[in-house]
Amino acid sequence: MPERLGPARATPLFDKIALIGLGLVGSSIAHVARRQNLAKEIVGFDSDADVRTRARELRLCAIAESATDAVRGADLIVLCVPVGAMGDAAREIGPHLKPGAIVSDVGSVKSGVLSAVMPHIPDTAHFIPAHPVAGTEYSGPEAGFATLFLQRWCILTPTEGADENAVAKLTAFWEAAGSHVEIMNAAHHDLVLAITSHVPHLIAYNIVGTAADLEQVTQSEVIKFSAGGFRDFTRIAASDPTMWRDVFLNNKEAVLEVLGRFNEDLAALQRMIRWGDGQGLFDLFSRTRAIRRGIIAEGQETAAPDFGRHIGEENGAPTRS
Amino acid sequence: MPERLGPARATPLFDKIALIGLGLVGSSIAHVARRQNLAKEIVGFDSDADVRTRARELRLCAIAESATDAVRGADLIVLCVPVGAMGDAAREIGPHLKPGAIVSDVGSVKSGVLSAVMPHIPDTAHFIPAHPVAGTEYSGPEAGFATLFLQRWCILTPTEGADENAVAKLTAFWEAAGSHVEIMNAAHHDLVLAITSHVPHLIAYNIVGTAADLEQVTQSEVIKFSAGGFRDFTRIAASDPTMWRDVFLNNKEAVLEVLGRFNEDLAALQRMIRWGDGQGLFDLFSRTRAIRRGIIAEGQETAAPDFGRHIGEENGAPTRS
Repeated sequence: MPERLGPARATPLFDKIALIGLGLVGSSIAHVARRQNLAKEIVGFDSDADVRTRARELRLCAIAESATDAVRGADLIVLCVPVGAMGDAAREIGPHLKPGAIVSDVGSVKSGVLSAVMPHIPDTAHFIPAHPVAGTEYSGPEAGFATLFLQRWCILTPTEGADENAVAKLTAFWEAAGSHVEIMNAAHHDLVLAITSHVPHLIAYNIVGTAADLEQVTQSEVIKFSAGGFRDFTRIAASDPTMWRDVFLNNKEAVLEVLGRFNEDLAALQRMIRWGDGQGLFDLFSRTRAIRRGIIAEGQETAAPDFGRHIGEENGAPTRS
Repeated sequence: MPERLGPARATPLFDKIALIGLGLVGSSIAHVARRQNLAKEIVGFDSDADVRTRARELRLCAIAESATDAVRGADLIVLCVPVGAMGDAAREIGPHLKPGAIVSDVGSVKSGVLSAVMPHIPDTAHFIPAHPVAGTEYSGPEAGFATLFLQRWCILTPTEGADENAVAKLTAFWEAAGSHVEIMNAAHHDLVLAITSHVPHLIAYNIVGTAADLEQVTQSEVIKFSAGGFRDFTRIAASDPTMWRDVFLNNKEAVLEVLGRFNEDLAALQRMIRWGDGQGLFDLFSRTRAIRRGIIAEGQETAAPDFGRHIGEENGAPTRS
């Protein structure tokens, strides 16, 4: 890092892209699709009239007044709504899809979205579920930016027998947005994301809640002394509540499975502390460093100390490479 | 942010400062003490000969070959060793302290350090425990930098009847290093830090361990898809294992108390997921945003999306103020 987007395409990949939902991810797709010349026409819709107004002011893309207007004639439709709203969105647009249209989504859960969306997609169209593993703690159309997906992974979970051309075209789309693409089945996706995303968010929300409720420590103290580690958790605990409620309601099984393992491991650590098992603590604390080194080596994280938060300060932290 | 250190002092605060331990914090004190003209003479010692060699090469400060040499004639001695090594360090230097010398430390636990160090400090010297709440995930003398303590809080926990002049002088020292100073008793410090630092570290170490041990998800998958949230936890889980082992062994009671509450709260969340209580999840996920806003408003965190990791990228994330 920093990396850059490649050159824009000479010819657009699609004639018309429709984005249903203009929050962080939908608006970021609008930015990068325009920047990279991924479509001749980009039309967006959001069920919230206020979001449509703000998106117009931001000149994100053309804004339709209904989902059906947005998808009419589109050859790629991306559902960028919370996981719990995917089924309704699909029901609404299903009858208006152009033959041969590719429908995709950006949901963090794939099995639930597949079963909610699939019944509403006509045989003449293709549903290829996708999940760009990228985000920030901010929400809404103002939060989007063109490099959100840069160097991040986008996971496609096509069903068996899915149209190969549609998969190839969606792959080309995400690669042009700067992403690496991986294909896996929906159930495996949901388990992988339970450990790499869902349970981490749950734990972050939980510790921030625990801190807020402690009677012996004031909120002011929690805030002042948060640089001891706590503040790192508050970032993902500031993520969109609706999106995350839906993730947990729709990936119950995998989340509870991973959470069960987390709890077992934490109970073992708790016991080591109670009984003074310094060697056990040291052993765990030593082996967790390797994973961070791997994440940095794979370009998924900065090597700068403290996430680079000190960068820009006079005599700031040394940068690492 | 970014903030800057104030102008250097016209006259030094101390004649001689001795730093026992030259890791991240000890070396950062050496940097800022030199930069801010806090002492006429700065002498460092580390029990690891290799660290002494590297510190010499870095020209951090004068390097002594023994702790007793380092503290001879010093009017401020700061113990910058892991919490579990404080007692031994104090025993070694106790007989060699100059009358009137101020001894302090930087440990993340204060009750344990007080009882380990106090017996070795002669009546002619003053022990004023301190904890600068600042750090990065890197260790060793190369990791230090002058602005580590800038805008961070330093907590002093003097015992009842501690010398007021010594407290005032140590306060002036940390303020000159760019910190805000707060005074509280050791037991309260240990509880506050259990929630703002110790339990967050424990949870981070734990989830990284859980991820490493999952059989159904490969380490390569954990690394690739870590941008979904997991990577945030790997930063503090890359912190120094010895330091953190000692923290948990020496703040057992407060850590187990806070961990008990964390576990109760997590069990409630787990139950909400199992029974599909969307409203309960939404309510918690909504109220956790306020604490992050407070942390940003108090200057303890950047408002830039994603910790500012996107800054510097072309068309990067919008910055927030």
